[in-house]
Amino acid sequence: MTDTVRIMGIDPGLRRCGWGVIETRGNRLSFVACGTLTPPTDIALADRLVHLFKEITALVDEYQPDEAAVEETFVSKGAQSALLLGQARGIALMTPAARGVPVSEYAANLIKKSVVGTGHAEKDQVAAMIRILLPTARFKGADAADALAIGICHAHHRLAAMRLRASA
Amino acid sequence: MTDTVRIMGIDPGLRRCGWGVIETRGNRLSFVACGTLTPPTDIALADRLVHLFKEITALVDEYQPDEAAVEETFVSKGAQSALLLGQARGIALMTPAARGVPVSEYAANLIKKSVVGTGHAEKDQVAAMIRILLPTARFKGADAADALAIGICHAHHRLAAMRLRASA
Repeated sequence: MTDTVRIMGIDPGLRRCGWGVIETRGNRLSFVACGTLTPPTDIALADRLVHLFKEITALVDEYQPDEAAVEETFVSKGAQSALLLGQARGIALMTPAARGVPVSEYAANLIKKSVVGTGHAEKDQVAAMIRILLPTARFKGADAADALAIGICHAHHRLAAMRLRASA
Repeated sequence: MTDTVRIMGIDPGLRRCGWGVIETRGNRLSFVACGTLTPPTDIALADRLVHLFKEITALVDEYQPDEAAVEETFVSKGAQSALLLGQARGIALMTPAARGVPVSEYAANLIKKSVVGTGHAEKDQVAAMIRILLPTARFKGADAADALAIGICHAHHRLAAMRLRASA
């Protein structure tokens, strides 16, 4: 017996935050929904974060994922941009967990490897593989495709990740 | 006519998050409450952030601040620690705003200047000045004192900050 598990992947960002919901049953994957959140940029930072929080909460309530996954952001552009990204990432990690959904984190190169087969794939390779792995998926831009890739990575690694969480 | 305004200052951190509530009426300040949140360190990052979110929400609901203020974190220890701090800071900024409390941000040196008179004060100088400015304040450690200092800085600069917010 293998149960269907619904997974929400989130690619955090303050300007563009990708999200994608898939289902996995054994080694089968299926597409549920995806999109990109774009908080307004002309309001205070705290209010932009509230926008993300409310939108992700609404998505969790609508799609009722069993588990969530967020990319372990690699930061290379200096401390100030890492701080900015960290703020959006804090919301992306916290919001599903506040609704009782366990959240796993995956390194960017593991996500690419899970989807494309190599850790050094370009964004358009990821999107192309998502179209093959989830033929019914409809998305514009890289953020939603990345979020679906994070979900697929979790589908592949979730049992190991959940064991790690349980023993943490 | 000068109304009393209740201010919550937050010094964000994932291990130790200081908070302090003061009231300002004209140029008079008074102490209400302060403390330090210490999310457990042996749980998943997302759950530590949920802990911060729930504790800050409870404080906002208990003390009903009119306005909140958070330090504009200066990051010097590299991108990875900035990312970690950013996650806690995202929660500290978002949580009061989600309850409808406007949140202002202040640079660390402006906060020190507001309290000690110079932007290069040490932590113990800040704590000593807090004891003078808010004689009834009781706190242990630097985090709660820093949070009260953030609140005092906002009391001094709030009218300018609110005008800036309104025109943003």
